[in-house]
Amino acid sequence: MTKQWVYLSRNGKEEYARVYGHAPSLNDMKVLFGGKGAGLVDMTSAGAPVPPSATLTTEACVEYMNTGKLPAGLWDQVLVAVKDIEQQTGKQFGGTTNPLLVSVRSGARVSMPGMMDTVLNLGLNDATRAALAKLTGNEWFSYDAYRRFITMFSDIVMGYSREHYERRLEELKEKEGVEGDPDVSLDGMKWLVAEYKQMYKAHFGEDFPTDPYKQLEAAIIAVFKSWNGKRAVDYRIHENIPHDWGTAVNVCTMVFGNMGNDSGTGVAFTRDPSTGAKVFYGDYLLNAQGEDVVAGIRNTKPVSRMGEDLPEMYAQLVEITQKLEKHYKDMQDTEFTIERGKLWMLQTRNGKRTSRASIKIAVDMANEGLITREEAVMRVTPKEVDALLHPQFDEKDVQKAKAAGRLLSTVGVNVSPGAAVGVLAFDADTAEALKKAGKSVIMIRPETKPEDVHGMIASKGILTSRGGATAHAAVVARQFGIPAVVGARDLDIDVDAREVRVGGQVLKEGDWASLNGANSEVFAGQIALTEPDFDKEVELRTLLEWADEISSKADARQWPSDYKGFPTRGLQVWTNADYPKDARRARLYGAKGIGLCRTEHMFFEQERLPFVQQMILNADAAQALFDRESRLQTTLDTGKEEGANITADRRAEVAKELEATKEEVAKSEAVKVYLAALAKLLPSQRSDFYGLFEAMDGCPVIIRLIDPPLHEFLPGEEELLVAVTELEADASRPRTETGKRLFEETLHAKKVMLDAVKKMHEANPMMGLRGIRLGITYPDITKMQVRAILEAACDAAQKGISVHPEIMIPLTGHFNELAVAQAELEAVAKQVTLEKGVQVDYKFGTMIEIPRAALTSAKIAEYAQFYSFGTNDLTQMTYGYSRDDAERRFLSKYVDTGILPANPFQILDRDGVGKLMKMCVRDGRATRTDLECGICGEHGGEPSSVEFCYLAGLNYVSCSPFRVPVARLAAAQAAVTHRGKALS
Amino acid sequence: MTKQWVYLSRNGKEEYARVYGHAPSLNDMKVLFGGKGAGLVDMTSAGAPVPPSATLTTEACVEYMNTGKLPAGLWDQVLVAVKDIEQQTGKQFGGTTNPLLVSVRSGARVSMPGMMDTVLNLGLNDATRAALAKLTGNEWFSYDAYRRFITMFSDIVMGYSREHYERRLEELKEKEGVEGDPDVSLDGMKWLVAEYKQMYKAHFGEDFPTDPYKQLEAAIIAVFKSWNGKRAVDYRIHENIPHDWGTAVNVCTMVFGNMGNDSGTGVAFTRDPSTGAKVFYGDYLLNAQGEDVVAGIRNTKPVSRMGEDLPEMYAQLVEITQKLEKHYKDMQDTEFTIERGKLWMLQTRNGKRTSRASIKIAVDMANEGLITREEAVMRVTPKEVDALLHPQFDEKDVQKAKAAGRLLSTVGVNVSPGAAVGVLAFDADTAEALKKAGKSVIMIRPETKPEDVHGMIASKGILTSRGGATAHAAVVARQFGIPAVVGARDLDIDVDAREVRVGGQVLKEGDWASLNGANSEVFAGQIALTEPDFDKEVELRTLLEWADEISSKADARQWPSDYKGFPTRGLQVWTNADYPKDARRARLYGAKGIGLCRTEHMFFEQERLPFVQQMILNADAAQALFDRESRLQTTLDTGKEEGANITADRRAEVAKELEATKEEVAKSEAVKVYLAALAKLLPSQRSDFYGLFEAMDGCPVIIRLIDPPLHEFLPGEEELLVAVTELEADASRPRTETGKRLFEETLHAKKVMLDAVKKMHEANPMMGLRGIRLGITYPDITKMQVRAILEAACDAAQKGISVHPEIMIPLTGHFNELAVAQAELEAVAKQVTLEKGVQVDYKFGTMIEIPRAALTSAKIAEYAQFYSFGTNDLTQMTYGYSRDDAERRFLSKYVDTGILPANPFQILDRDGVGKLMKMCVRDGRATRTDLECGICGEHGGEPSSVEFCYLAGLNYVSCSPFRVPVARLAAAQAAVTHRGKALS
Repeated sequence: MTKQWVYLSRNGKEEYARVYGHAPSLNDMKVLFGGKGAGLVDMTSAGAPVPPSATLTTEACVEYMNTGKLPAGLWDQVLVAVKDIEQQTGKQFGGTTNPLLVSVRSGARVSMPGMMDTVLNLGLNDATRAALAKLTGNEWFSYDAYRRFITMFSDIVMGYSREHYERRLEELKEKEGVEGDPDVSLDGMKWLVAEYKQMYKAHFGEDFPTDPYKQLEAAIIAVFKSWNGKRAVDYRIHENIPHDWGTAVNVCTMVFGNMGNDSGTGVAFTRDPSTGAKVFYGDYLLNAQGEDVVAGIRNTKPVSRMGEDLPEMYAQLVEITQKLEKHYKDMQDTEFTIERGKLWMLQTRNGKRTSRASIKIAVDMANEGLITREEAVMRVTPKEVDALLHPQFDEKDVQKAKAAGRLLSTVGVNVSPGAAVGVLAFDADTAEALKKAGKSVIMIRPETKPEDVHGMIASKGILTSRGGATAHAAVVARQFGIPAVVGARDLDIDVDAREVRVGGQVLKEGDWASLNGANSEVFAGQIALTEPDFDKEVELRTLLEWADEISSKADARQWPSDYKGFPTRGLQVWTNADYPKDARRARLYGAKGIGLCRTEHMFFEQERLPFVQQMILNADAAQALFDRESRLQTTLDTGKEEGANITADRRAEVAKELEATKEEVAKSEAVKVYLAALAKLLPSQRSDFYGLFEAMDGCPVIIRLIDPPLHEFLPGEEELLVAVTELEADASRPRTETGKRLFEETLHAKKVMLDAVKKMHEANPMMGLRGIRLGITYPDITKMQVRAILEAACDAAQKGISVHPEIMIPLTGHFNELAVAQAELEAVAKQVTLEKGVQVDYKFGTMIEIPRAALTSAKIAEYAQFYSFGTNDLTQMTYGYSRDDAERRFLSKYVDTGILPANPFQILDRDGVGKLMKMCVRDGRATRTDLECGICGEHGGEPSSVEFCYLAGLNYVSCSPFRVPVARLAAAQAAVTHRGKALS
Repeated sequence: MTKQWVYLSRNGKEEYARVYGHAPSLNDMKVLFGGKGAGLVDMTSAGAPVPPSATLTTEACVEYMNTGKLPAGLWDQVLVAVKDIEQQTGKQFGGTTNPLLVSVRSGARVSMPGMMDTVLNLGLNDATRAALAKLTGNEWFSYDAYRRFITMFSDIVMGYSREHYERRLEELKEKEGVEGDPDVSLDGMKWLVAEYKQMYKAHFGEDFPTDPYKQLEAAIIAVFKSWNGKRAVDYRIHENIPHDWGTAVNVCTMVFGNMGNDSGTGVAFTRDPSTGAKVFYGDYLLNAQGEDVVAGIRNTKPVSRMGEDLPEMYAQLVEITQKLEKHYKDMQDTEFTIERGKLWMLQTRNGKRTSRASIKIAVDMANEGLITREEAVMRVTPKEVDALLHPQFDEKDVQKAKAAGRLLSTVGVNVSPGAAVGVLAFDADTAEALKKAGKSVIMIRPETKPEDVHGMIASKGILTSRGGATAHAAVVARQFGIPAVVGARDLDIDVDAREVRVGGQVLKEGDWASLNGANSEVFAGQIALTEPDFDKEVELRTLLEWADEISSKADARQWPSDYKGFPTRGLQVWTNADYPKDARRARLYGAKGIGLCRTEHMFFEQERLPFVQQMILNADAAQALFDRESRLQTTLDTGKEEGANITADRRAEVAKELEATKEEVAKSEAVKVYLAALAKLLPSQRSDFYGLFEAMDGCPVIIRLIDPPLHEFLPGEEELLVAVTELEADASRPRTETGKRLFEETLHAKKVMLDAVKKMHEANPMMGLRGIRLGITYPDITKMQVRAILEAACDAAQKGISVHPEIMIPLTGHFNELAVAQAELEAVAKQVTLEKGVQVDYKFGTMIEIPRAALTSAKIAEYAQFYSFGTNDLTQMTYGYSRDDAERRFLSKYVDTGILPANPFQILDRDGVGKLMKMCVRDGRATRTDLECGICGEHGGEPSSVEFCYLAGLNYVSCSPFRVPVARLAAAQAAVTHRGKALS
């Protein structure tokens, strides 16, 4: 018996079952019918009236490739199929009353853009064209359809480039003095068809084929051959697709919506793709072709109005689309055509939607019972959740602005999503002043520094021309949820001239600008905004509650049995927050703890900075005295010096030195100022922490001790150097006595500061005196901080607040650093609780951000009760990339050219940094099974990185408040994706 | 039967065998007799006439501790032993003719400095003192001995502090108006003894004991009790020594060399400890006490002269010391005393010796058959080998200089051993000029920079007040074997004033100074020198040949069976050399290849630097054009832009753009200068490499492509900033036309350079645009280098030289970097060999210095044919330490206070960096079993690090030429130490 080479879409599923003995899955059908053919069959069997069609199987193609001819029996089956289609449609292939026209398309198992295009309108010749003209009442349309068919057939089936035909069309338009194809006259169209036929004959030496069956046979063979065309073969090699799959051929009835007032065409959505509301939504046109709807040439009507024009058809459409939504379990975007009172569904697919709609639809469908809650959680993307938490531009206004040439730049890095509109301010003070004057501000700087933070916080948006995803501007922006575009290189920001120049346009300070932190678009002028409100985002909150439920229950991370201490609880989401208001926001957003409070951010506050600077300028002198005192005391206590016993003489000497040193300490101005500055900072820090404990009642709060190099709190070296050089060059100018004194004082102060800054200068500050190294060098600073933390905790506990402070020591590289520093600080903590008479549940732990810490985790966990991965620095040091420069200097090129799969400061590098993290967690828990492990680097809010943290067995991820919802979703999705799989 | 508590040294070994049923090892004896007791027994049984002595066992001590009283039978055994000693010596304990005096000492299994001191002269009372006076003919001596005994007995046995007695002595000296103890009058001594007895009685309420047996019993009990004294217990806790070991008590005959002209005393060495020559060596004094020899109060005679005074005794002494040398298989340092015609050996120990002597003695002893070659290799320390390769100070001259107060500083870091003498030069140019004028120079700077290298090379020594073991000065100094002291913080180096101030002294430019790079001593003026000559170091060369033999044969590193590709060959020693003369020197020193040639060092040469700077200043502009050209060409070639097919219109546009770009390239001044500079550098580099291949005929030569950030080749930013600011401040001064033009030109040039430097400024240059990142950003530079390497290699091969170039790509972090860069460079290499028509055996590999490279070694080894660990940078990034600053800022404190066991830039950190290296080697060889792995960081010449490299399975270590001999020794010692042990 002949093999079945041709299947009708109206009974493809049943036929398959008959031939193969089992009902096909969608994938089974894709293998045999190709993707498009499977779709036609599936849609038909879902009950949609799909224009009758037939599919020649991929097996037929393979057979053709092997033998070089159409398989025996195939053509007969094609003829049977055509008959069947004629019957279904009431049309005749080549008929002159109601002619059947078809489209012919290739369709492989997977989509292959490199293959054959579609041939439309196959079946046209002079007679059928005339019939079409009569049926549509549109002669121009019939000639245009014929012209297009000749072009496509010549080009795609016969291989004679369409360029030749198109050139003739261009000439015609020039002659007629018209711009668009639709403007060509009827006579022009007629002439064109005649001309095309002539050209065809001149090229091929024979007439353009008029027999529809000949046309069809040629098209089928062309599709089969196209499988081994150069483009297709290249594509398969590139995409690693087997060469022996073959392609199917789809022959599908053409239907026309322009056959009178019982015809029409449109696009219909089963829900509103903008809001997600469960309403029937779309556009339609009476008596029109599908492309008229899309092209926007004629004014469409809302599809709901179709109920007035064609009530029966409308009811049918509604019913069918609902059926399709149920079938595909997702909101459907459908195309339909009504040809002379008969509804045809041309296409259905899962509809694109806004972020808001996506979330609403997922939650609604779960509530309707159409999908499970877990499916709802898996269907929404983290990006969609993120979008809802930032102001967004009104899309129509964006289009208008683009049309008006107001788009200034798109090349920046989109580091903090959300849209912002404001007047430009070229420095932090101006930004703050404008804000106080009631303006919305966009702060614009070549780059930002810590002293700019007050201006940044005052701004609606931040825009810089330098830096990348982890520049200061980017970090601060994300931290505070301020939309930002950084490193927009094409902006020439002239701070002195208070203007920015780009592509011939100039914006001055105070001019309006708008930026979209989600896609890095920057506009001149204002774009209309929509604002977020988490409280009102009912569906989002529902979805995230479901996500948390999944995270807490469905966590079934399975570790090899020799791994110790991996959490059985789900991956929690904590937040990075320095201030109570951030903490409160993060709790609203669902955070279960604070994973990182950066104490030094508090040092930058304007009223504290003077004390911080006093502390720094006197620290070395004071500490040198303290060190000497303690060294002498130790010698007396132990009777030893450098390991050797001391003589009585030496002992007397040391005792005398100690006395002298104590006197020196008592008299020292440096010590006085140093201790006074610390004493001044203590109550401020205490009240900072109290506020945090209050906001996080019942939750753990990880507070990191001072981390950055101290010079960050002082003015820049270059600035000081220029000032001193200028002053010195100006020294000889004649001055009054007062002027002279003032001049000397100014110069002296600048010089002192310059000296201090120079002394602190480091070739690579990132790897310099910071973190725990500071704590060991100047123990009084960290002791003050620990005292402030414990005093605040005790005070809060006494007020009935449930406090769980966790004190984090940053930048540990060797366990001995912890052994020394932690012991000192634990003593302070104990001392405070004794003083206050309050028991507080506190922990000491460390940040893992130095590769060596990760490598020696087994030892470090002997001291640390918790780990927090500082993946920003860990990535810097594992890669040897300085994030301040890398993006500007080479990293962008690395990502653009594919040397790196992604920017490792945005998406955690699993192969390198991640490998270290896994080792670290495993080795650490082997030492201390209840070691709490989390991440507080910016990766903590990035979905792929959250997934990795789940896989690495962390207890929590911590991210900026605005990323908490995203992380909650990502954590749940990771749990679902990897449920029950063994991890390594 | 009573246990044997007391053993005589004359038959201790035999007694032990009788009691325990087996001959004791030295360790067995230490357990029972303590370290000192075992030594006495061992020396006696080696045939030396040791003053008769007895040892009370550690068991006796334990028994005493348990029961609180002397064990039963012990005192009887003591009495028997005393009798035996009396018999041996012909003296009587408490006798008034020839009284026996003894010393009583504690002696635990291991040396415990925290325990009881020695009691000498026990047995003295008025009667025995008188006998002693008579025997020695020295009444003063007898009173002095008695006075000392009372002091020691009171203090050590009875616990009444010696301070009380010493105060009385001080008062006496003041009264008599004398300085030293020996100057006290006889009457004074007499008075003192009487006074001491009074004091004793006043304090204890009873007379000072006169019965020698009572004295002895009290001393024995005091020693036993001292085991649980506070000092001893603390020491044991600190050193982790068990508390139940107990101490032995040694009772030993006192002998006196001042009993007439048939008596004497001296120190004798079996070989010359200064040269190692096999001659009898030492000093002696007739009729004198041992301390007279040591104190240098009387002029000693060479021991060889003893043959004239006491020929029999001399012959006996020579014979006995030879016997002892054979027994201990090492050069002996002995103390002897002749008491009334009887020779006593008081002590023998392995003698301290100079480095030179150590090597000669080891080689001689192996040649004499006394020890094996392997023992000879194990006996010499790497430090001793090192010392022979650097000029050294004459020790006597050093002492003289110290006595004269010429020692200026000792607090610097001793970074490059050897001694240097020269006139001070405060900058590189002056150093060079002085050298040309025939002077020996010591260059002194606060710190050095790359542009100082020409001055450093011209200098005999380098001295800085800043930096540490890995500062620029230190690295360059070691590289060129220039003695250096860096970071001598107490030196106030005033470059402007051309002087250095320290401790009240001032040295000016041109003044002489001397420094010792081995111990960081710095002197004013000249110290006499001894110079090294490897050719003449016959014994050293022999020893190192034996070491190589061991390395190549005895390498039996055993790896777990699942490890792939670990070398069965020994650990080789290669060298880091940039110039042929270094390479030649390294071969002389035994290097088997070049592990690192730093091509950029060649860029710093004065005649090339201008071209290098031109290249840098034009690289960005030129590269931007090249990049645009190549992007457009790719679009035309592939017909795609950003992945999408382009239209015909766009294609035409691109073609036009490409034409325009090509024109722009052709006209571009930047391109012209850039390519011209590269073309200028090519022949220089080629001839550099040719010289290296010639010098290393037959050996592998690893050449590293350009590595440092480009700004290192430009002037410093601060310098330029000050210059520009000063010029601008001076702009308004009236000038002639020419002056104005000149001024404008100067200002412009400085500004251009400043702009370029600013643009290149990086916050952390260590982690910035350097290494392979440069190669990918500016491929023409590395292509030029590869062309130069291959051209040189082909030329050399044609001249019959056996060339094995290995091209090393630095700073790889991701395998894709290699995938891209290496492919381009391999194409150049292939191209050159085709042009030249020569087959050259070359390799491509990478430096492993980024943690991520080590972590992803399995992938990187798919590209790299060899690895070289750049442990300087790998340590920086694994620890997060910037070596430019770390030492100055906190690392010294870390090492001083024991937070770090050692400076990880000096001694490779096995737990962190080493762990990464092991992973990297193992994973890399799993991918590529013949992966060649080596180290080229400075650790390659440090013995402990060499041992680690052996353990990690490396093929070779590479170090500076001057460290090659050290590394050869260390490699052999590692092989011996770990022979046959399984590695992990």
